[in-house]
Amino acid sequence: MAPTLALVGATGAVGTVMIDIINGKESVPWGEIRLIASARSAGKKITVRGEELTVVALSPEAFDGVDVAMFDVPDEISAEWAPVAAARGAVAVDNSGAFRMDDEVPLVVPEVNADQVGARPKGIIANPNCTTLSMMAALGALHHEFELTELVVASYQAVSGAGKEGVDRLYAELNAVAGKPLGVKAGDVRAELESAGLPIADSPFPAPLAFNVVPSAGSYKGDGWYSEELKVRNESRKILGIPGLKVSATCVRVPVVTTHSLAVHATFAREVTVEAAHKVFGAQQSVVLVDDPERNVFPTPAEVVGADPTYVGRIRQALDFPNTLDFFVCGDNLRKGAALNTYEIAEKLAPEFA
Amino acid sequence: MAPTLALVGATGAVGTVMIDIINGKESVPWGEIRLIASARSAGKKITVRGEELTVVALSPEAFDGVDVAMFDVPDEISAEWAPVAAARGAVAVDNSGAFRMDDEVPLVVPEVNADQVGARPKGIIANPNCTTLSMMAALGALHHEFELTELVVASYQAVSGAGKEGVDRLYAELNAVAGKPLGVKAGDVRAELESAGLPIADSPFPAPLAFNVVPSAGSYKGDGWYSEELKVRNESRKILGIPGLKVSATCVRVPVVTTHSLAVHATFAREVTVEAAHKVFGAQQSVVLVDDPERNVFPTPAEVVGADPTYVGRIRQALDFPNTLDFFVCGDNLRKGAALNTYEIAEKLAPEFA
Ligand SMILES: NC(=O)c1ccc[n+]([C@@H]2O[C@H](COP(=O)([O-])OP(=O)(O)OC[C@H]3O[C@@H](n4cnc5c(N)ncnc54)[C@H](OP(=O)(O)O)[C@@H]3O)[C@@H](O)[C@H]2O)c1
Ligand SMILES: NC(=O)c1ccc[n+]([C@@H]2O[C@H](COP(=O)([O-])OP(=O)(O)OC[C@H]3O[C@@H](n4cnc5c(N)ncnc54)[C@H](OP(=O)(O)O)[C@@H]3O)[C@@H](O)[C@H]2O)c1
Repeated sequence: MAPTLALVGATGAVGTVMIDIINGKESVPWGEIRLIASARSAGKKITVRGEELTVVALSPEAFDGVDVAMFDVPDEISAEWAPVAAARGAVAVDNSGAFRMDDEVPLVVPEVNADQVGARPKGIIANPNCTTLSMMAALGALHHEFELTELVVASYQAVSGAGKEGVDRLYAELNAVAGKPLGVKAGDVRAELESAGLPIADSPFPAPLAFNVVPSAGSYKGDGWYSEELKVRNESRKILGIPGLKVSATCVRVPVVTTHSLAVHATFAREVTVEAAHKVFGAQQSVVLVDDPERNVFPTPAEVVGADPTYVGRIRQALDFPNTLDFFVCGDNLRKGAALNTYEIAEKLAPEFA
Repeated sequence: MAPTLALVGATGAVGTVMIDIINGKESVPWGEIRLIASARSAGKKITVRGEELTVVALSPEAFDGVDVAMFDVPDEISAEWAPVAAARGAVAVDNSGAFRMDDEVPLVVPEVNADQVGARPKGIIANPNCTTLSMMAALGALHHEFELTELVVASYQAVSGAGKEGVDRLYAELNAVAGKPLGVKAGDVRAELESAGLPIADSPFPAPLAFNVVPSAGSYKGDGWYSEELKVRNESRKILGIPGLKVSATCVRVPVVTTHSLAVHATFAREVTVEAAHKVFGAQQSVVLVDDPERNVFPTPAEVVGADPTYVGRIRQALDFPNTLDFFVCGDNLRKGAALNTYEIAEKLAPEFA
């Protein structure tokens, strides 16, 4: 019998893209597909592969008969419910931050470490955070060839990284400031938002995003670091299998709806040239090279959003740093950065249950 | 007699801010102030320190009797006309890129290398580009204490760095997309701009900026580098007096009106701590520390625009790199990044002519 797939968090930003992905596939290895969300969404109808499915509320019984359960829900819901799904016999593939650094949970990017899906003593497999994932296919391919040793990255992160609420907020802010000559006096954007009934206290972001960028992502973790910056470091090390990888990340939110971008400065143990990097990327199916700066050809988030691959451009040899490349990478944080990678892991598991 | 000051490019983005700065001063050391622009603007009236002045067209005679001439015009106009002003006896303080890397022209940031204003064999002093300038007061102070050796920076650059045209374009783009759920499909923003009569071919930027970021600034210089990135490297080395400084920069345009931001990863020869950096910045008048990440206190461009100092926050010790700080800096590209620094140089010169 074809295995049963559950999608927990089917109504969220990532869950919605997951359903798009499943609907877009020519064929899927699943029999039943079950949609799960909070009790608030129970009874909602969503069409999946031509069939109208009814969302059911999260409960232990919801996992009965499920072989693979993908979790696209907040950390604390995953922390509580992924073990419940596993205890009922499902493999949980979790997109939250709850299990990523757990030594007994593999952190998987299929292009880089697909072999680890089998090593899951807890019955749980974790999906990396979207910022790390946006560069992993590209970095994994380079690492394989040249051996990565150091990484300095600055991010340009989309608001949908903060879920539906983040997207709604950006649209509301841009509508409130449209047609007004703002962004020229300290605090004029904040004041305008306030008077439009959009105080920052109500935003998922700690400062305005209209006409602005905000150098914080995630929660504060001490010593000057926000959680997203530490995730980039710790998850990169775990996925690439380089415990001593040197990493410094600065994560910055920008007024982009979807698709994270990163400016990457990567140092390798072996000599690396732009030509060699082009060759490596050319051979990596999930990376698209968009790199002809003379003709202003490079990836930008609004020009590549919605696609599965990672887009890489602006590749150049660092002038003063040996064995070092600088490049710019854009990846859809809801697709490869979240739903797509999770789904790819789930598909790798399907044959076990066929 | 009090010296005569000329402002060439009085009608531009930088020139307009220059006039604000002059009008905001309690006192100025100048007698006559002369406003110069293209023949298109000749006859225009602008009020400076309570007096209505008439803009005159650029000509050799316009420099007669001028002691200090500030140039805020495109490169090619400066290249031609700064030597003319110098030949007529004025000191030219040039804000364009025309003379910055000329060995016979000092490149001055008063906080860092004020002593060099006297060494001007050509009668010309250059002002750094705005991206470099945005971090120079902060970096200069750190260098003085800890000796800078390496610099990896990624920028978040405002559209006014491309002049009035850049600002007009961003406003037009945001108005065209307001209220529309764009930024979710590859190219949907570009298509909407096109249908609103705003094709990218008419933009000063090579891609949309609404819901987007664009990893290019300046013109293409070969080997993967754009001019702004090379300026950051070459001008930092010259200003700080470190010919061997290792620099890699990625310059990215963001939908911010004014104020450039930079994510800086700076390595020093000597040990550096966050506390020591706080102390150094506390002692540097033109740097304001905004650094309490636990309370989401850090600088953002829209919150500090319009001010003279550079704002620094998110200061942290790099976890894996010795003697290295990561920080985020915001500086108004039209004030300290352009007009203010030029004006500060001009004021340093005034006593020579008093
Ligand atoms: N957005 C991204 O770029 C991204 C990338 C990588 C990973 N992630 C992670 O993916 C997860 C989902 O993120 P998102 O952006 O999709 O969030 P979201 O838009 O807020 O969606 C949250 C989903 O979780 C469900 N949910 C919330 N509370 C629940 C409860 N008590 N019981 C059952 N279901 C509950 C919601 O159902 P209702 O609609 O019924 O409330 C909704 O389906 C998070 O862990 C996030 O960190 C997100
Ligand atoms: N914007 C920044 O952040 C920034 C920062 C640092 C340095 N800079 C540099 O500062 C300079 C001015 O930039 P901007 O942004 O102010 O440019 P802008 O807004 O385009 O203004 C250009 C100015 O130059 C004048 N001009 C143009 N062609 C002329 C000609 N043939 N003869 C005489 N005057 C002429 C214009 O006068 P009309 O109005 O009469 O045309 C106008 O006053 C540039 O070199 C730029 O690279 C800019």
